[in-house]
Amino acid sequence: MMLIIYLIAITAEAMSGALAAGRRRMDIFGVAVIAFVTALGGGTIRDVTLGNYPIGWTQHPEYVYIVLSAGLLTTLVARYMHRLKQLFLMLDALGLVAFSVIGCTIALALEYPIVVVIISGMLTGISGGVMRDVLCNQVPVVFRRELYASVSLFVCVLFLLMKWLGVGENITMLVCFGCGVAFRMLAIRFHWRLPVFSYQQRWE
Amino acid sequence: MMLIIYLIAITAEAMSGALAAGRRRMDIFGVAVIAFVTALGGGTIRDVTLGNYPIGWTQHPEYVYIVLSAGLLTTLVARYMHRLKQLFLMLDALGLVAFSVIGCTIALALEYPIVVVIISGMLTGISGGVMRDVLCNQVPVVFRRELYASVSLFVCVLFLLMKWLGVGENITMLVCFGCGVAFRMLAIRFHWRLPVFSYQQRWE
Amino acid sequence: MMLIIYLIAITAEAMSGALAAGRRRMDIFGVAVIAFVTALGGGTIRDVTLGNYPIGWTQHPEYVYIVLSAGLLTTLVARYMHRLKQLFLMLDALGLVAFSVIGCTIALALEYPIVVVIISGMLTGISGGVMRDVLCNQVPVVFRRELYASVSLFVCVLFLLMKWLGVGENITMLVCFGCGVAFRMLAIRFHWRLPVFSYQQRWE
Repeated sequence: MMLIIYLIAITAEAMSGALAAGRRRMDIFGVAVIAFVTALGGGTIRDVTLGNYPIGWTQHPEYVYIVLSAGLLTTLVARYMHRLKQLFLMLDALGLVAFSVIGCTIALALEYPIVVVIISGMLTGISGGVMRDVLCNQVPVVFRRELYASVSLFVCVLFLLMKWLGVGENITMLVCFGCGVAFRMLAIRFHWRLPVFSYQQRWE
Repeated sequence: MMLIIYLIAITAEAMSGALAAGRRRMDIFGVAVIAFVTALGGGTIRDVTLGNYPIGWTQHPEYVYIVLSAGLLTTLVARYMHRLKQLFLMLDALGLVAFSVIGCTIALALEYPIVVVIISGMLTGISGGVMRDVLCNQVPVVFRRELYASVSLFVCVLFLLMKWLGVGENITMLVCFGCGVAFRMLAIRFHWRLPVFSYQQRWE
Repeated sequence: MMLIIYLIAITAEAMSGALAAGRRRMDIFGVAVIAFVTALGGGTIRDVTLGNYPIGWTQHPEYVYIVLSAGLLTTLVARYMHRLKQLFLMLDALGLVAFSVIGCTIALALEYPIVVVIISGMLTGISGGVMRDVLCNQVPVVFRRELYASVSLFVCVLFLLMKWLGVGENITMLVCFGCGVAFRMLAIRFHWRLPVFSYQQRWE
């Protein structure tokens, strides 16, 4: 079950990467790389940070084929994608929750301190998107807009809390996915944002 | 003693990260991330490069709390910070020296060749700031202005030289911090710069 | 023989890094860093991804000296370099092939799956240039123009195919270098490009 959600998640992330590459008029190689980095880059950063070798996708060639296919297929169906906007945002939210939970689980298994476990969940959830934006030469959208990272933080804390309370795994998953996806969709729908810090003073 | 200076250093770096995030009008999540990356990113890059696992801050949750607090507090006091400019620059210089010395010490303990030890010191000193600038979508300031990296290089070489000469640890530290901070403050005061390489030729 | 080609490769890459730094009017420290990252960054990313510690250049200080010297010397001879454009492009192509073959060889020795071996070759070949462009604050040229990454992919597949067919090592090398460099030079000469994916639709 978790595996299926994970496969949906990396597919959705690969598609978002491909669209970002298209906005920069990249060639299809660029599309493939950005799709790969967006989908599997977050897990890579997490594994490198935790010293969790070998890195996940190097043991699962099928993940690589999936994200490359998803990225390249996106170039063919891109013109119809705005019609599926709601579905796409839903899958993306599903992916965010799945990545966050997986990141927490891996750091827990390695017995890292609790704050590192939360950072591991958030790294998995958002750093693929950060790398996508850096490679597309823009300020990462996750630092500026909407509640995306906050959803990841919320899910990580909720997950750890329920684990600590001894709630069963199935219920924990159900609650994390239910609340996480709902939170994300509401945040998009009502344009919830975090307060912005604007500092324009010059020192010279 | 070294620990206190290190804590001052990560606090100063986190504040500089938060101000950079504010210049890009990031939300408070973005501020927290940039503060974290600026303060702890240099050490992370060093540890990943040297294969020095587990990475420092993952074993010291208190460092994470300090840099996040410093970053978020900065959003509240930012409007008064230009009055403390001299103090801030002084703490930043102190941090640069501390990071450089720590980076050298760690690579020395792992018995890397001398040029790698120096690179390790400089990676610790400057790559946090480089990542801050990349995430804020600008050419890293350290590649263009002032003697910042040069101070790090100078401190690393001085530190290794004194160690090689068999000078006691306390005196070595005193000299490194004294000369390093003085060098940095003089460089700022008198606008010392390295020669610039400008290459505008087109090949096509 | 392979070592000599490798040294030529990192020299050519360091020079391309230095020129990119000059286009951004960096100081000589920035030139040295960009030269270093362009020449040795690809191998670093590969080794970190594969968990192949210690990282190559940390055991070969002479590589570091070579790339730093090449980078700094470039600032002196830059004005004459356009006259040597053809030679420079040829060395760069040689470097691309060498990096790709080395990347494949290392991942093969670590017994990674075949798709990871190819990614390892391409990471070694192109990620130095990607990091150069990110640090110079531009969209990586390899995602947008010319057949550069495609040459790397072609060489990796050719190399693995010949190895799988049991062709002797010398012949394999000769064919990889011959075909790879020819492919690259023809791609430049005739402006071969991959199809571009342009996606300018707004969803809001």
